[in-house]
Amino acid sequence: MSEELSSEPPPSAEAQVRHATEADLPRIVELLAQLSLDESREELGPPLPETCRRAFQQIQADPNQRLLVAEAGGRVVGTASLLIVPNLSHRGRPYAIVENVVVDATERGAGYGELLLRYAMEEARRAGCYKLSLTSNKRRTDAHRFYGRLGFQATHEGFRVEF
Amino acid sequence: MSEELSSEPPPSAEAQVRHATEADLPRIVELLAQLSLDESREELGPPLPETCRRAFQQIQADPNQRLLVAEAGGRVVGTASLLIVPNLSHRGRPYAIVENVVVDATERGAGYGELLLRYAMEEARRAGCYKLSLTSNKRRTDAHRFYGRLGFQATHEGFRVEF
Repeated sequence: MSEELSSEPPPSAEAQVRHATEADLPRIVELLAQLSLDESREELGPPLPETCRRAFQQIQADPNQRLLVAEAGGRVVGTASLLIVPNLSHRGRPYAIVENVVVDATERGAGYGELLLRYAMEEARRAGCYKLSLTSNKRRTDAHRFYGRLGFQATHEGFRVEF
Repeated sequence: MSEELSSEPPPSAEAQVRHATEADLPRIVELLAQLSLDESREELGPPLPETCRRAFQQIQADPNQRLLVAEAGGRVVGTASLLIVPNLSHRGRPYAIVENVVVDATERGAGYGELLLRYAMEEARRAGCYKLSLTSNKRRTDAHRFYGRLGFQATHEGFRVEF
């Protein structure tokens, strides 16, 4: 996972987390662009790339994929993707993964990241998952402290190969 | 991910990787039990727990989930789970995750782990994924060297919370 977070106080009362709708898609892609150091990685449109719209439809069609947005004052201020994965170990209990966590650079420190993560943890628990896991770039030490405060432990190395 | 691997020479010519069928299920659960230090984590049966059979059916019904087995001399010697995840970042390119990698303790060092991982990398590439990622317990330094040899880089911290 990549993420842009920072240390955050408790979320403000008016903020809420909900599942995304298609109307949120351009704003979500705008937020995801903040994850990248490479400006050309995302294509914001309009129009959005057709591959992006197709991916959104696949995500919405799969009950194990939950695309979350944090909303405050009528505006989407953050997003996260939650994935529930059917699994054979642990006597067939599923596990959960969070990916693509981002809070708008202008809205950090207001607790929206915590609100998104706590929502994901609650959904994972309710789905019977034995764990919720995520990876965070080794350079993002602020994010590591944030996850630690929420009860996450850095037990694993996160490996990747890119294509 | 958890895994039990070790340094391995090139795989033997007679070995192959294929998608699992229901007949492989008891053997796969037996292998997964080797991942755990806690003997009571899995229930080997017979009969296997109903939750396990249900998870298998969900995995088989989802074209984005590929349960792999390595076979040698007519016997299943290893397994890995590959997951292709529809994704909004990277212009809507999916990513892939490998989990539950295990080679039988009595069959290590014969290259089956490499065979499984190379198969997963090839499927991820063919599905258009921008990355294949996995996590490995920080204590499994042998596995880390193994992943490094296959081209994986430990760029991320792997966080988890357990329920």
